[in-house]
Amino acid sequence: MSDSPLTIGIDFGGTSVKIAVVFQSHIIDHAPPIATQEFSSPEELIAAMVRVVEDLRAKHPGIAAIGVGMPGFVDFDAGLVYNLTNVAGWTAVPLRKILHQVTGLPVIVENDANCMGFAEWKCGAGRGFQHVVFISMGTGVGGAIIANGQMIRGARHGAGEIGQTSIDYQGRPGHYGNLGALEDYVGNREITATAHDAYRAAGIEKAFEECTPAALAAAAHLGDPVALAQWDAIGRMLATAAMNCCWLLNPEAIVIGGGVARAGELLFKSFQAHLFAQLSGPFKDHLRILPAAFGHEAGTIGAAALAREAI
Amino acid sequence: MSDSPLTIGIDFGGTSVKIAVVFQSHIIDHAPPIATQEFSSPEELIAAMVRVVEDLRAKHPGIAAIGVGMPGFVDFDAGLVYNLTNVAGWTAVPLRKILHQVTGLPVIVENDANCMGFAEWKCGAGRGFQHVVFISMGTGVGGAIIANGQMIRGARHGAGEIGQTSIDYQGRPGHYGNLGALEDYVGNREITATAHDAYRAAGIEKAFEECTPAALAAAAHLGDPVALAQWDAIGRMLATAAMNCCWLLNPEAIVIGGGVARAGELLFKSFQAHLFAQLSGPFKDHLRILPAAFGHEAGTIGAAALAREAI
Repeated sequence: MSDSPLTIGIDFGGTSVKIAVVFQSHIIDHAPPIATQEFSSPEELIAAMVRVVEDLRAKHPGIAAIGVGMPGFVDFDAGLVYNLTNVAGWTAVPLRKILHQVTGLPVIVENDANCMGFAEWKCGAGRGFQHVVFISMGTGVGGAIIANGQMIRGARHGAGEIGQTSIDYQGRPGHYGNLGALEDYVGNREITATAHDAYRAAGIEKAFEECTPAALAAAAHLGDPVALAQWDAIGRMLATAAMNCCWLLNPEAIVIGGGVARAGELLFKSFQAHLFAQLSGPFKDHLRILPAAFGHEAGTIGAAALAREAI
Repeated sequence: MSDSPLTIGIDFGGTSVKIAVVFQSHIIDHAPPIATQEFSSPEELIAAMVRVVEDLRAKHPGIAAIGVGMPGFVDFDAGLVYNLTNVAGWTAVPLRKILHQVTGLPVIVENDANCMGFAEWKCGAGRGFQHVVFISMGTGVGGAIIANGQMIRGARHGAGEIGQTSIDYQGRPGHYGNLGALEDYVGNREITATAHDAYRAAGIEKAFEECTPAALAAAAHLGDPVALAQWDAIGRMLATAAMNCCWLLNPEAIVIGGGVARAGELLFKSFQAHLFAQLSGPFKDHLRILPAAFGHEAGTIGAAALAREAI
């Protein structure tokens, strides 16, 4: 066995399942994506995944393990998918057991945000740190926690759900009854809706497509004051949740990825200013704020990296 | 060396320094407290502490190590006191080195809330769990985090400061510029001030002494509606900060101690109801909410327990 064997990373999404062969932190081959919603049962979708895996193994005989990142609650130790947020029928599916029985390979199954965080920690922006908070900003806001040089999963493997933490104890009611959940303010859709309202309040009618995070970033770069104010507010709200992580965990680095983070300096400058204004010395003097190194491939690379640990 | 040797636990407070001999989780002897403010320099106070330690060692020859809990920022690895919140002159004091040189014993120096959390985790209410959040509610609101069966101290040993986490991103400005810090709502003084205002708003004039947490607990037990509403609000705000810990760390147990927690069911019932209403299954199904096992001796017992780990 080589120091860094080939592994397969599977990024299971609500729209598509992406399967790739990974060497260290590089995708060296990837199969055409599988359309998630075309399969009516987990069994059929797993069978399709296995066919792709076996095709890739035929091309790359050295593949030593499989890692799967799932968009929902996963029991990492048992390799069990509790349930998925946006894919029907996936309740209590023993995915690791099934994939292992069919392929004979070691398999790990992990939450997708934890896969992304693991990729950033092991091979990306958070490399070399012992204490990292990873935040993924997209339609959902997810995360992962590394402390004492270990992934923190908690009692039922749910840890890292920074998007569900509250920034306002009297705030908007969230999906789980939680008031003021960060995701309900800075998730992709909520950013768009809030900007739409802000433009209207300024007497400017915009279509929703003109209020997405990408559109807001473009407008802010042209000096649009409404868009600039939105990025300040987004950075401020994100900073509150990150500040809570800092007081609780005193990390060395906060790594931010996901589509919304593509706004770059617009987000990071505001975020860092609001964050550092609310921390004392030992919490900020050495704190690094870092954009994620991997884009949409983070989940695949992280799942494959976790698979290497299972060999 | 026996399995559980005698160690000395020192609870260094802003008012007094308490020094005791501890066997397992029991204080078997304690010296008269030292009045902290009677000493004008760290050197003089440390000399007084050493005299007490040597007296106790003369009585108990088996003492094998010393643990000190300090009310401020401490570098646990270096045994260095960065600074203390309420005691002048204690800046960058190499306390472990000094105590070790004079006594010849292994010494650990730790933040006081971490000592209390360690006591609860190793010998108290949190015993046997791998993932624990400890919250201490007094004049200050402090805490400690145990994850993966380890104390989480973070990059600069600051972790566990739950009282500084925000429950409102637009809330009251706190000591470190942090907006909406939990401590600024449910610290002893803030509870008293808020209750005083609430009584006045209800047309009832009360002295501040009649609005303390202890007085509010007594009034609530007699059915006082203002006091009952205060306990509901305190439980609700505490639940928000604890909920954030749950989404981030998915603990098995939350242990709550400190003077305010002496309100018992008044606090715990409200806290648990608000907390469980804002968590999904994997975060609450097995979650235990526990009152701390140790009272004002938690710091001493925890410092002594940490000292045992240093032998």
